[in-house]
Amino acid sequence: MSADWTIERLQKELSLCPAIVFHGIEATSLDAAKRRVVLKMPLRPELERAPGSGQFHGGPVASLIDTAGDYAVALAVGGGVPTINFRVDYLKPCVGPYLEATAEVRRAGRTVAVADVDVTNADGILCAVGRGNYLSAIG
Amino acid sequence: MSADWTIERLQKELSLCPAIVFHGIEATSLDAAKRRVVLKMPLRPELERAPGSGQFHGGPVASLIDTAGDYAVALAVGGGVPTINFRVDYLKPCVGPYLEATAEVRRAGRTVAVADVDVTNADGILCAVGRGNYLSAIG
Amino acid sequence: MSADWTIERLQKELSLCPAIVFHGIEATSLDAAKRRVVLKMPLRPELERAPGSGQFHGGPVASLIDTAGDYAVALAVGGGVPTINFRVDYLKPCVGPYLEATAEVRRAGRTVAVADVDVTNADGILCAVGRGNYLSAIG
Amino acid sequence: MSADWTIERLQKELSLCPAIVFHGIEATSLDAAKRRVVLKMPLRPELERAPGSGQFHGGPVASLIDTAGDYAVALAVGGGVPTINFRVDYLKPCVGPYLEATAEVRRAGRTVAVADVDVTNADGILCAVGRGNYLSAIG
Repeated sequence: MSADWTIERLQKELSLCPAIVFHGIEATSLDAAKRRVVLKMPLRPELERAPGSGQFHGGPVASLIDTAGDYAVALAVGGGVPTINFRVDYLKPCVGPYLEATAEVRRAGRTVAVADVDVTNADGILCAVGRGNYLSAIG
Repeated sequence: MSADWTIERLQKELSLCPAIVFHGIEATSLDAAKRRVVLKMPLRPELERAPGSGQFHGGPVASLIDTAGDYAVALAVGGGVPTINFRVDYLKPCVGPYLEATAEVRRAGRTVAVADVDVTNADGILCAVGRGNYLSAIG
Repeated sequence: MSADWTIERLQKELSLCPAIVFHGIEATSLDAAKRRVVLKMPLRPELERAPGSGQFHGGPVASLIDTAGDYAVALAVGGGVPTINFRVDYLKPCVGPYLEATAEVRRAGRTVAVADVDVTNADGILCAVGRGNYLSAIG
Repeated sequence: MSADWTIERLQKELSLCPAIVFHGIEATSLDAAKRRVVLKMPLRPELERAPGSGQFHGGPVASLIDTAGDYAVALAVGGGVPTINFRVDYLKPCVGPYLEATAEVRRAGRTVAVADVDVTNADGILCAVGRGNYLSAIG
């Protein structure tokens, strides 16, 4: 089923969710065989920690991680799925014109899928990492 | 030091952060002695999972949790602190006109503080829980 | 179904698992209506971090948390269930003649249950907290 | 400082901790430049979930993860460090004559280090993953 995924379909699904659209999260690339997606989130003033700081607030970074993990699992199971939980670790200040999240499925079981997400900034510096569980049993 | 905290100061600190302002997160109450804060996030179209659904997307719920935990720790240590990590578990769909997050410090050590956050909706239903670590050593 | 749970049944189930027996984990109390169990783990030399230190190593503390959360969920869903994941936060050195873990179900959904676990030592000091997801759909 | 680490030193440090010795955790390899350690835990009857099952209980798997992450950080910062927290996700039944944990430091900050741990069985199947924070500021 993952054969049906294209960057256009991914972008279209993202564009249907108001919160994702507000965050400005866009599809960069996907590899259905590797169950991997890359999403990008450009800096907007509304995403900053402090005005003019150029630093993303941790909340939007968490949103990016949640979304990236979700769509990596969607590649594996056929469609968007509910998040059960996720964890985010902030490693360095998330500074720069954009962040990029690379999400990969570590395991897609019958009921639960596990995805890992690495977040880098425009300089390629690893700023945050995420790990989440998603409900992989979809109707 | 926590004696200096008032609801006005908390609201003012929240209003300095563009991401918190965008999310529309407001101070509801605080109890410095109990190291507990309650924040509220009304629904906005930009926070929805699907247009007109009345359901918050998981990302903003995570932002609310991060922010509430952060300010509970701020009560204990004197000011806003960097988030080291947090975990969010989604228990039920976050539906309704607003969400309320109650955050409490479980431990404020010399270096790391731990806060728990419960998120309920307007009907008082527990929708999500968070737990995070914050850097409690501030300059 | 949880009406069938007694402290004897809980103790018997614990005694069937070699790893739980090795750790010396015992049933202290349970409250099926509140979906809460309390387990106790006396100190043994094999559980120490350093010889003669009187301090539990973090690994056995994690085992205690996993087990306590598991049986709190068992009260709610009728029997032992697989752990999906859990998180442990170490708050203070786990020192003393025994540890006690109080586990409570926060949510028992159709597929996933969430339990919180507080670990205290013999002086009643909160040493560690756990939170985990368990598969609540059992055959 | 990490230049001082050898497999003999790692094995010796492991052998000083009663809980690690009880679990039978041994050093397999280390790469100080990559801040990576590999530890092995053979199956013992006391580590089983059910007698004769050949399946490790989740508790000892968590202990293996905690220990592996800890020593990966030790390579980076010079010595054993306290665990702040960790998360374990169980992906598949941990079955077989031994488990192997590969731990890598993702970030060693001034105060907090983050390590990732992958656990495979003797067939090379990924059974569990861990992620933890360790206090990297040591005296």
